[in-house]
Amino acid sequence: MVPYLCTAFQDVHVMIFVGFGFLMMFLKRYGFGAVGFNFLFAAFGIQWALLMQGWFHSFKSGKILIGVENLINADFCVGSVCIAFGAILGKTSPIQLLVMTLFQVTLFAVNEYILLNLLHVKDAGGSMTIHTFGAYFGLTVTRILYRPNLEQSKDKQGSVYHSDLFAMIGTLYLWMYWPSFNSAISEHGDAQHRAAINTYCSLAACVLTTMAFSSMLQKKGKLDMVHIQNATLAGGVAVGTSAEMMLTPYGSLIVGFICGIVSTVGYVYLMPFLESRLHIQDTCGIHNLHGMPGLIGGIVGAITAAAATEDVYGKEGFIKAFDFTGKYQTRTPSVQGGFQAAGIVVSLLMAFTGGALVGAILKLPVWGDPAAENCFEDDVYWEVPEDEESDVYHMHNPDKPASP
Amino acid sequence: MVPYLCTAFQDVHVMIFVGFGFLMMFLKRYGFGAVGFNFLFAAFGIQWALLMQGWFHSFKSGKILIGVENLINADFCVGSVCIAFGAILGKTSPIQLLVMTLFQVTLFAVNEYILLNLLHVKDAGGSMTIHTFGAYFGLTVTRILYRPNLEQSKDKQGSVYHSDLFAMIGTLYLWMYWPSFNSAISEHGDAQHRAAINTYCSLAACVLTTMAFSSMLQKKGKLDMVHIQNATLAGGVAVGTSAEMMLTPYGSLIVGFICGIVSTVGYVYLMPFLESRLHIQDTCGIHNLHGMPGLIGGIVGAITAAAATEDVYGKEGFIKAFDFTGKYQTRTPSVQGGFQAAGIVVSLLMAFTGGALVGAILKLPVWGDPAAENCFEDDVYWEVPEDEESDVYHMHNPDKPASP
Amino acid sequence: MVPYLCTAFQDVHVMIFVGFGFLMMFLKRYGFGAVGFNFLFAAFGIQWALLMQGWFHSFKSGKILIGVENLINADFCVGSVCIAFGAILGKTSPIQLLVMTLFQVTLFAVNEYILLNLLHVKDAGGSMTIHTFGAYFGLTVTRILYRPNLEQSKDKQGSVYHSDLFAMIGTLYLWMYWPSFNSAISEHGDAQHRAAINTYCSLAACVLTTMAFSSMLQKKGKLDMVHIQNATLAGGVAVGTSAEMMLTPYGSLIVGFICGIVSTVGYVYLMPFLESRLHIQDTCGIHNLHGMPGLIGGIVGAITAAAATEDVYGKEGFIKAFDFTGKYQTRTPSVQGGFQAAGIVVSLLMAFTGGALVGAILKLPVWGDPAAENCFEDDVYWEVPEDEESDVYHMHNPDKPASP
Repeated sequence: MVPYLCTAFQDVHVMIFVGFGFLMMFLKRYGFGAVGFNFLFAAFGIQWALLMQGWFHSFKSGKILIGVENLINADFCVGSVCIAFGAILGKTSPIQLLVMTLFQVTLFAVNEYILLNLLHVKDAGGSMTIHTFGAYFGLTVTRILYRPNLEQSKDKQGSVYHSDLFAMIGTLYLWMYWPSFNSAISEHGDAQHRAAINTYCSLAACVLTTMAFSSMLQKKGKLDMVHIQNATLAGGVAVGTSAEMMLTPYGSLIVGFICGIVSTVGYVYLMPFLESRLHIQDTCGIHNLHGMPGLIGGIVGAITAAAATEDVYGKEGFIKAFDFTGKYQTRTPSVQGGFQAAGIVVSLLMAFTGGALVGAILKLPVWGDPAAENCFEDDVYWEVPEDEESDVYHMHNPDKPASP
Repeated sequence: MVPYLCTAFQDVHVMIFVGFGFLMMFLKRYGFGAVGFNFLFAAFGIQWALLMQGWFHSFKSGKILIGVENLINADFCVGSVCIAFGAILGKTSPIQLLVMTLFQVTLFAVNEYILLNLLHVKDAGGSMTIHTFGAYFGLTVTRILYRPNLEQSKDKQGSVYHSDLFAMIGTLYLWMYWPSFNSAISEHGDAQHRAAINTYCSLAACVLTTMAFSSMLQKKGKLDMVHIQNATLAGGVAVGTSAEMMLTPYGSLIVGFICGIVSTVGYVYLMPFLESRLHIQDTCGIHNLHGMPGLIGGIVGAITAAAATEDVYGKEGFIKAFDFTGKYQTRTPSVQGGFQAAGIVVSLLMAFTGGALVGAILKLPVWGDPAAENCFEDDVYWEVPEDEESDVYHMHNPDKPASP
Repeated sequence: MVPYLCTAFQDVHVMIFVGFGFLMMFLKRYGFGAVGFNFLFAAFGIQWALLMQGWFHSFKSGKILIGVENLINADFCVGSVCIAFGAILGKTSPIQLLVMTLFQVTLFAVNEYILLNLLHVKDAGGSMTIHTFGAYFGLTVTRILYRPNLEQSKDKQGSVYHSDLFAMIGTLYLWMYWPSFNSAISEHGDAQHRAAINTYCSLAACVLTTMAFSSMLQKKGKLDMVHIQNATLAGGVAVGTSAEMMLTPYGSLIVGFICGIVSTVGYVYLMPFLESRLHIQDTCGIHNLHGMPGLIGGIVGAITAAAATEDVYGKEGFIKAFDFTGKYQTRTPSVQGGFQAAGIVVSLLMAFTGGALVGAILKLPVWGDPAAENCFEDDVYWEVPEDEESDVYHMHNPDKPASP
C-alpha cells in the first residue's frame, strides 16, 4: 500500500462521514437524521461505487481489481451524493435517500467516465465531477420535490447554540483535510505537492473574505454562523480542478478570496431569490458552497490548462501534468482548455437531466416521505430520547408552580 | 519511522481516546466519566502495556526496545480494557478502573503471548486477543459486581439528544479508522492492503443490515440510536483475524452483513435476557458489539486459515501470510485452522478466569465504588458545573409564574 | 511530497484548528467566539507566517519556495498565537485579534530566526519558540489590557456541562497528535522516532499526576474538568525541545510526571494569585499549560543537550542530532547547552517587550473591544440563535401553568 494513498484515504473518509455528517447537523432537531442518514447512504454508496467504478475502470478478466485508490474514488463518488443530500436535508425519507444514492452513483460514474476517459479532462479534486455535478443534481431534485407548505415546519429550520457547534466540527474537518482531498489521486510527486499547497492557500484566503463579508452584509455587523460553516469551504471547491496545475499560491489566494465573497453573497441575496422565485428549497445552501464555486473551479481549471506552457512545467512535467501521451500526444494546452470547458457543460447536462429523472422517481408516493409539518424533525424516523435531563437538573424549574 | 506505521499509530490512538471515550458518552449524566475515566485508565494502561509487552516481546540485554509498533500494540492492549469498561460503565470508581486496568493488561499480555508465540496464531486485528478476551473479561467482571438495586438509578441510564450526538463522534471515528486498526501491524505490503480493504467492505455492509434490522425490530419502524452507535461497528470486529488473509471483498461483505444482524438482534432480544436471567448488567452492550462478533471473527479466521492454498496466495505469499517458517515450516493450513480455533478457547478461558479473579478483587469494599442510586452520575467523582445557562437564556421560563 | 511530512502536517493542522479551537470552547456562552475567532486569525496567520518565514528562511532569487514543511512551520507559528489567545479569550474584538496576529507572527519569525539561525539552538517541538514565547507574550498583553471590572461578567466565565464536553474534543486531539507535533520537523529517521516516543511517554505520565493532584487538591476529592482539559497536556509542552534528543522514555516519564503536578498546582494556587496581585487575567490559564511547562521544556532541553555524548548518540548521530557541521563544527555539548539556555532568555525578552508593545497598541480605543459586562459573550459579535428548542421540547415546561 503506498503510504500517502493510505493517509489520504483516511482523511477523505473522515471528510465524507464526519465532515459532511456533522456539517449538516446544524438544524435544531435533525441531528440524528443528518449524521445517521449520511452514514447510511454513504455506506451503501461506497459499495455501489466500488462496483460501478470497478466496471468502468478496473475490470479485468471477470474480476474487479480493488486497491486503496478505488476506496478513495468511492468516497469521492459518495461525496457528490452528500452534496445533493444538503439540498433535500430534512425533507426526505431514508428510502428516498437510498434510491437517490443508487441512481446518483450510477450517473456519477457515467459522467466521470465521459470526462476522464472520453474528453480526457483533468479534475483531480472534482470541481466538475463532484461539486458541479452533485450540486446541480441536488438542486434539480429539490426543485422537483418542491413543497409549497414547507413553512409549516419553519420553526424547526433554524439552529440552536449547540447544533451550530456540532456543525463546526464538520466544517473544520472538511476545511483541514481538503488539501488531502484535492491531492489524493494526483500524480505522486510534484502534482500532489502543488495540489495540497494551492488548496491550503485558497482555503485560508476564503476564510478571511467570508468573515469580512458576513459581518458587512448583516445588520449590526454581526457574524452569521451559516456563512462561517459553509462559505469558508468554497475556496477548496474552487481549486478542485486546477490545484494540481501551476495555479501558483498567489493564484490560489485570489481564487479563494473571490469565492469567499461569491459564496457569502450567495447566502445573503441569491438563496432567498432562488426559493421565492424558482421554488428551489435548498436546505444547506449547496448552491453557494458547491454550485457556484464548482463552476468557478471548472472555469479556473480550463483557463489554467489553456495557459500552460512547457516553460513553466518543464518539458517532462508538462506532458505528465496533462497526460499528453498516446492518442493525446498532439493535444495543445488551448485545446485541453476547450475540453475542460466542455467537461463543465457535460457535467451540468448530466446533473439537470439526471436530477429531473431521479426527482420524478422520488416524487412517486411510495417512499414514505414526511409530511410538510414533520420536515426537519428526527422524531419521524428515530427513537428520540425525551430530554428528561432538564427535569432533573434545571433546579429553577417550577414543575408544580406554587399554587396561589 | 516507517511512514505507514506512524499514520496507523495516530489513527489507532484516535480510536482509543476519542473513539471509545466518546462512544461511551451516550449516558445523559456520565459524559465526564466516560471520556475522563477512559482518558485516565488508557493513559495508565499504555505505560503498563509498554512494560508488559516489552518484557514478553522486545526485552534485550536488560533493556526494552521501543518503536512505534510497540506504541500501537500498547494501544491495542488498552483497547481490550476500553471494551471491558463498556460493561461496567457508570458503576465503578476510578480506583477500581485503575486496578482492573493493571490486571487486565497483564492478563492480556499473557494471553497474547500464548496465542501469538506458543500457538503461533494469526490475529492482526485482535478478534480474539482484543475483542473476545476484552468482552468476556468485562462481562465476567460485571456479573460478579452484580447490583440488584441498579434500577434505583434507572432514570440516568438513558441518553439525551446531545449525548447521543457526542456518542456518534466516537462511533464514526471507530468506524472510519478501523481499516487502519486491522491493518496496522500486518506485514507491510499485500497483507496490509488486504486488511484495510476487507475491513472497509465488512464495515460498509454492516451499516446497512444494522439500519434495516434496527428499523424492523422496533415498534413503529423507527431507528434506534443505540444500534447505530454500536452494531454498525460489529463488521470491523468480525474480520479482525481474517482481514489480512484472503477473505476477499465478497467474503468481507457477507461477514459484515451477518454481523450487523447478529449485533442488532443481540441488543433487542439477548441483552434484556442476559440482564434478567444471568444477572449480567452490560451498560454499553459489549456482548453485542465485541463478544459475539469477536467469536465470529475468531471462527471466520480459523476457517479462512484452514481454507488457504498456495494457489490463492502464491507460494511465497502463502508462507509469508502465515509465517510458516522455522519450526512452523511443516504446519499445514488445516492444522493452522485448528490452532486458530484453540486460540478462541484459550482467550475465553483467560477471560472467564481472569474476569472472575479481578471481579472478586474489585468487590472488596475498599475502592470507593458508588452507591446504587449514584450510578451513571458524574456528580459523585467530578465537579459538575451548574447549568446556569438555562437560567439566563431560557427566556420562556416563568421563574415566578404570574400570580393570578 | 515526503509521506511523513504530509501526515504530520495534517495532524498539526488538526491541532491548530480543532485542538485549540475546541479546547477554548469551555465557556458557556463563548463557543462561537472560541472556535470562530480561532478559525479567523489562524487562517490569517498562516498566510502571513508563510510570507514572514519565507522571507527569513526560503527566499531565493525573488521568490519564496514553499513546501509542505513550510505549511507545518506556518501552523507552528500560528500555534503561538492560539496560546496567547487563551489569555485574552472573551475580552477582545476580532479586529484586535487580527492586529495581534499580525504583530505576533512577525515577532515569532524574528525570535525563531535568532534562536535557530543565530544561536543555532535546537527546538523542534517549540518549547521555547512556540510555548514560552506565546505564553509570556499573551500574559503580557492581558496584563496591559487589565480590566478592573471584569467581575461584572463573572457569571459567564464558567462552563456548562456540554461546553466542557466540547472542550474535551480539543484536549484529546491536542493530546493524541502531540507526538506528531513534536516530531513533525525533526530529522527524518532516528530523531523523529525518538521525538514521537518520548512525547507519548511524557503525555501518558502527565495524565496520571494531573488526575491525582486534581482530586487531592479539591475539596471532597472530586476531579476538576479544567485540570483534565489543560494540565494533561503539559507533558507535551515540556518535552518540546528535548523530545528528539536522547531523553529516553524514562526521562520523558519523569518530565511528564512533574509537569502534571506543576500545572495542576498552578491552576489551584498560582492562578488566583496572579490575578489578584499581579492583575494578570488569564482566561484559560495558559501560564499553567504553556508558560511554566514551556520554561521547564527549555531547561530540560538545555540539560539534555549539555549531557549529550558520542557514546549515546553514536559519532554520526551525535553530529546529526545537533547539526554540529560547518561553522558549528567545534561546538561542544556543554556550549550547546549554554546556547539553549540563552534561547530561553531571548524568547522571554521578546515575549515581554513584544507583548508590552502589542498590548499598548491594542489598548487604543479604536478596535471595538467589548464592555466589561459583555465579556465572554457571543452575542456581541455573533448572530446567536434563540434556543427555542426548550420551548418546543421540554414537555415539562408549564408555559401556561394550569390555572387553579
